[in-house]
Amino acid sequence: MSHNSFGNLLKFTTWGESHGEAIGCVVDGFPANIPIDLKFIQSRLDLRKPGQSKFTTQRQEKDMVKILSGVFNGKSTGSPISFIIYNSDQRSKDYTNIKNKFRPGHADFTYYMKYKNYDYRGGGRSSARETAMRVAAGALSEILLNKIVKPKIKISSAVIQIGENKITNNKWNENFILKNPFFSPNKSIIETWEKSILYHRKKGSSLGAIIEVRVKNCPVGVGEPIYQKLDSELSKAIMSINAVKGIEFGSGFNLVELDGTNASDQMSSKGKKISFHSNHAGGILGGISSGQDIVFRYIVKPTSSVLSEKNTISKDLKNTKIRTVGRHDPCVGIRAVPVGIAMTNFVLADLILMCHSKLF
Amino acid sequence: MSHNSFGNLLKFTTWGESHGEAIGCVVDGFPANIPIDLKFIQSRLDLRKPGQSKFTTQRQEKDMVKILSGVFNGKSTGSPISFIIYNSDQRSKDYTNIKNKFRPGHADFTYYMKYKNYDYRGGGRSSARETAMRVAAGALSEILLNKIVKPKIKISSAVIQIGENKITNNKWNENFILKNPFFSPNKSIIETWEKSILYHRKKGSSLGAIIEVRVKNCPVGVGEPIYQKLDSELSKAIMSINAVKGIEFGSGFNLVELDGTNASDQMSSKGKKISFHSNHAGGILGGISSGQDIVFRYIVKPTSSVLSEKNTISKDLKNTKIRTVGRHDPCVGIRAVPVGIAMTNFVLADLILMCHSKLF
Amino acid sequence: MSHNSFGNLLKFTTWGESHGEAIGCVVDGFPANIPIDLKFIQSRLDLRKPGQSKFTTQRQEKDMVKILSGVFNGKSTGSPISFIIYNSDQRSKDYTNIKNKFRPGHADFTYYMKYKNYDYRGGGRSSARETAMRVAAGALSEILLNKIVKPKIKISSAVIQIGENKITNNKWNENFILKNPFFSPNKSIIETWEKSILYHRKKGSSLGAIIEVRVKNCPVGVGEPIYQKLDSELSKAIMSINAVKGIEFGSGFNLVELDGTNASDQMSSKGKKISFHSNHAGGILGGISSGQDIVFRYIVKPTSSVLSEKNTISKDLKNTKIRTVGRHDPCVGIRAVPVGIAMTNFVLADLILMCHSKLF
Amino acid sequence: MSHNSFGNLLKFTTWGESHGEAIGCVVDGFPANIPIDLKFIQSRLDLRKPGQSKFTTQRQEKDMVKILSGVFNGKSTGSPISFIIYNSDQRSKDYTNIKNKFRPGHADFTYYMKYKNYDYRGGGRSSARETAMRVAAGALSEILLNKIVKPKIKISSAVIQIGENKITNNKWNENFILKNPFFSPNKSIIETWEKSILYHRKKGSSLGAIIEVRVKNCPVGVGEPIYQKLDSELSKAIMSINAVKGIEFGSGFNLVELDGTNASDQMSSKGKKISFHSNHAGGILGGISSGQDIVFRYIVKPTSSVLSEKNTISKDLKNTKIRTVGRHDPCVGIRAVPVGIAMTNFVLADLILMCHSKLF
Repeated sequence: MSHNSFGNLLKFTTWGESHGEAIGCVVDGFPANIPIDLKFIQSRLDLRKPGQSKFTTQRQEKDMVKILSGVFNGKSTGSPISFIIYNSDQRSKDYTNIKNKFRPGHADFTYYMKYKNYDYRGGGRSSARETAMRVAAGALSEILLNKIVKPKIKISSAVIQIGENKITNNKWNENFILKNPFFSPNKSIIETWEKSILYHRKKGSSLGAIIEVRVKNCPVGVGEPIYQKLDSELSKAIMSINAVKGIEFGSGFNLVELDGTNASDQMSSKGKKISFHSNHAGGILGGISSGQDIVFRYIVKPTSSVLSEKNTISKDLKNTKIRTVGRHDPCVGIRAVPVGIAMTNFVLADLILMCHSKLF
Repeated sequence: MSHNSFGNLLKFTTWGESHGEAIGCVVDGFPANIPIDLKFIQSRLDLRKPGQSKFTTQRQEKDMVKILSGVFNGKSTGSPISFIIYNSDQRSKDYTNIKNKFRPGHADFTYYMKYKNYDYRGGGRSSARETAMRVAAGALSEILLNKIVKPKIKISSAVIQIGENKITNNKWNENFILKNPFFSPNKSIIETWEKSILYHRKKGSSLGAIIEVRVKNCPVGVGEPIYQKLDSELSKAIMSINAVKGIEFGSGFNLVELDGTNASDQMSSKGKKISFHSNHAGGILGGISSGQDIVFRYIVKPTSSVLSEKNTISKDLKNTKIRTVGRHDPCVGIRAVPVGIAMTNFVLADLILMCHSKLF
Repeated sequence: MSHNSFGNLLKFTTWGESHGEAIGCVVDGFPANIPIDLKFIQSRLDLRKPGQSKFTTQRQEKDMVKILSGVFNGKSTGSPISFIIYNSDQRSKDYTNIKNKFRPGHADFTYYMKYKNYDYRGGGRSSARETAMRVAAGALSEILLNKIVKPKIKISSAVIQIGENKITNNKWNENFILKNPFFSPNKSIIETWEKSILYHRKKGSSLGAIIEVRVKNCPVGVGEPIYQKLDSELSKAIMSINAVKGIEFGSGFNLVELDGTNASDQMSSKGKKISFHSNHAGGILGGISSGQDIVFRYIVKPTSSVLSEKNTISKDLKNTKIRTVGRHDPCVGIRAVPVGIAMTNFVLADLILMCHSKLF
Repeated sequence: MSHNSFGNLLKFTTWGESHGEAIGCVVDGFPANIPIDLKFIQSRLDLRKPGQSKFTTQRQEKDMVKILSGVFNGKSTGSPISFIIYNSDQRSKDYTNIKNKFRPGHADFTYYMKYKNYDYRGGGRSSARETAMRVAAGALSEILLNKIVKPKIKISSAVIQIGENKITNNKWNENFILKNPFFSPNKSIIETWEKSILYHRKKGSSLGAIIEVRVKNCPVGVGEPIYQKLDSELSKAIMSINAVKGIEFGSGFNLVELDGTNASDQMSSKGKKISFHSNHAGGILGGISSGQDIVFRYIVKPTSSVLSEKNTISKDLKNTKIRTVGRHDPCVGIRAVPVGIAMTNFVLADLILMCHSKLF
């Protein structure tokens, strides 16, 4: 019933509109006495921050996050941790043009029909700006996981397809991911993507993306049956990110073309070390982590704000045309990467705390 | 925190093991004074019932559902509705062979690692038998939706791919779906699927399936931002069904190959009638229903229980081999269809009740 | 939103009506591998069972509880535990007389106004019969607490006042409580209570009671700020028991007559042993257990069903008279004792599991 | 599991410490398009504000509340409403004296034992300063209730006993309550209370209080069985207020001295108007409002911070002495009045929204 909260034992609640005074987030259920490094949290936000390269929106937000409660003498106290980011670049532009029109592909129409009001200033609450606070909450859970799980869980995520251009040579170079503006795991595709994005940007169009997430060192046993399965919770989390339209685990939709003899992952052991011979399941069996890498992919649709004129209707249901002039991401999927990582961190932290609540 | 509950305002809790004395379900939050037709609920269960054709498992369960509370004089009272199904065909077979081995692709290993115990009799709680109760809860929500939403919501679901064989001629014949053992929406594929399933069954193998769900007449405005979006909740619901490994809405993963100019659905109106020129979004914008058909697909992996011998490990982590002899669905995806419908009905009923809790 | 559920990490959901086929309860979140002794649970139910002495109702219910799931080979599996009690003594009496009249002091009127229906057969869901399932859930949590908390938590509860007759000599004799039909902690009052109850019973009237609960060995640190305080949760739990109209902790309402110099409990230590010089706080400071005995009292109003004729109204809002003939407790407070113990056990188990979910 | 949240359909989450930079609150589930009058909310906060008379603490907090989200063009949007109050008077005093000692009657000891840390600067999170945000959330629900319930619900609350001095002449003068520094409903007691408080203040001691709440015009049918009863929820709410040690409804603990013939409230009707002949039940039957006035009382213990020296222990468990010098309320119960009203408003709004979620 908490429409703006996510999580169970660990829970965060976000608030704030794209062009309001501030956005914020309250994290509840965070254990006490964990050293909190605000710089680390800021560094995670910086990865999502707009205006960093010509491949993302030019809106300039410093996105400086501040902690208002729950941390005392550098450590969490067990009380709710309140984050705030003051909106600095609420460009006071003239909204007259689009104030009464619904932008196709956006939530304007559905919000208006549901609430009989909408915040035409950048989409208000439905803007992806809300995801900045997820990144803060996710960074906090990363700090927690790093403290309580050994060996450390490593979440790595990269864009593996932009438009038609897919990484064929699936070489996953961890170190490269953060060194390029596309979160690509592989250098060979960079030039193709650059050209493609610049081409579509120039046309006033945009591109979709597929993102892969890989989690190493997730302990066995994470996830609750029947309705808080690890994959259910991750799906709920990822599908709540703006513009995401699908998710698949392990071999995903391709599993339909395997037969049962080959589709399940055989196991063997060497001493106490258990190994799986394949990972079609994406590291999850019956909703519970198996100790293999957790692997999933999700699709982010092309940015809906494009320059070309489109048919739409106005608030009074009249036919009209719209062109969305403004600062937009030519491929919003790129900036979804740190958000997906954040949600993954959060889901894992929440479900791992839940394991600890079971005593035997 | 309710590992065995699903829903918010409307909530159901399932209990019971595959080979226990009974399975059951409690539905809470169901409005009062709705006429409850038990025969209708039973008819929904019959669609999921095993042993109906040679294309599903031969386990014979009558699956006669009974209501123990919450209905008085033929109508709901507003009190919790308790369903029970006594397990009739708990074949007292000899489990010695597999008692200490983990069946690959099943939850045996992860349950054992998590709980330090597992119910080797058919998987206990992790068995898809649990989904029978979801069908009961779903049928109840269908009754509710039929009573409160006009025009009636129509949920239709069909298998659109089994193994490599996909319906190319996507003609969706509503009436045909319930007249064939595959829930196929199209007669032309039947023969191909029959052959393919019998072939794999004979080999002791199995096949995966892709299932599509289409919802007509869903009112505009269903779904809560930000973390109870209609697509998030549906994803959580569907991904919690046994063997499901992915879900996509509207054009789903194919959206990556469209550019932004074509990917968003333009709108126009004629009088008060609003229409969309396409449905890439699958009827959901910003997590809220737009009034278009809601369309999504999910993949069910091939049944993991196969005859061919596989490598696995035992409870004491020793290497061993396993063959799963028994009565199994050659394509478990088929029987997932009524479960997917049930979960869709339930999610819609829950979220629509939530709309009514908002007064303006 | 779970109107029929109680708890957080550990949660139970009850269902069933007073004169329906059965009543039941599902306990979710119960840890795995705890030996479950059904006889012990039955023994707790026997304490609440009606028809045991002339001081309680003569309705004869065997109240044999059965477990339908969640226990395998004598131990909990981590899956939901489903209890059921079949109603054996649903005396098929003629309800014509009271079918359309609201019994004063009962929930008939408010249920009818809320739901536009009511179950005139013994109050249906609003009957105290529902509390039998709380006792089952409470006994289960007692088993859990005994296993995980050392030294064992000891919950003791007794009636300390019936009508005007209060135990003045507050000698609390643990062993005596279960040896008398009033759950009195003190022999000296027995004769007075006997006379008083028989006198009121004969008159067709009834009496109220005050019950005290004392918890020994509750660890320090149980209870969550700010809105899941131990006293908040206990109050919610106890106030949900039928006919309870008030609760107070420690010195309770009497604290108003103490000044601040004397009202707070001073502390001292001897080695590692901490002691408090008094217990005005009832063992709870800031909503968290302090390690002192937790002490609280609650008032159960006199049974509302009495023989004397009363003014009331009928379903069509006409003035009428009513006399409640039937089998009723002359002092329903007596049978509330095991229910209060059960709810206390449950709240403690739930909040103690929550402590374990915090890792540091 | 939301330790810092309260409510169900309507939910608020508070954050912030007594001496931190700010305190705040996020209200989620608030319906859209309700005109929000910030001045009204501020006026409610002003009633709770410290430093207003010599009978409350001299800490000077302007307590200027600000809304950061969820309101656009003067109306609620349906998005979360975020309140913030910057702490202005965090007197940077020297805490050396009490930094390592537990103040008797306070939560210092239990917080430290639970969290292994505590915020010695005014109690941090356990300070009653947190209740300022409850007043903001309560005022918001009052706005909602005024808009949706006709005739308007009227909540009136007054102090009826301070120390030994009780209002014997129970004349409840609504208009007088806000015109005196004690929230007394009756002029005749004022002089007695003044003297008593000034006497105890001078001694460095403090006094307890009993507060009564009366709700007029609450519609019939509010409250959910079995575990979200109106009285359960109100008890949970009120018992979560700092220093409250007991609560009773209607005739409360006095019901023990009535017999069943007199304890239940008889009913009659005149046309469609239903009336009750007494109100022992405090307006609640079976956990659901009956349409009568809802009446309850709660006890607030004397302020624990007193000047006289007391025995206590230090963090290293050594015996020591403590005197709490500082600015304290001589009778903290007085300032609890607006907090109790706020919580009552909130519970009613939450449960009334829940009624609207039921369609029949």
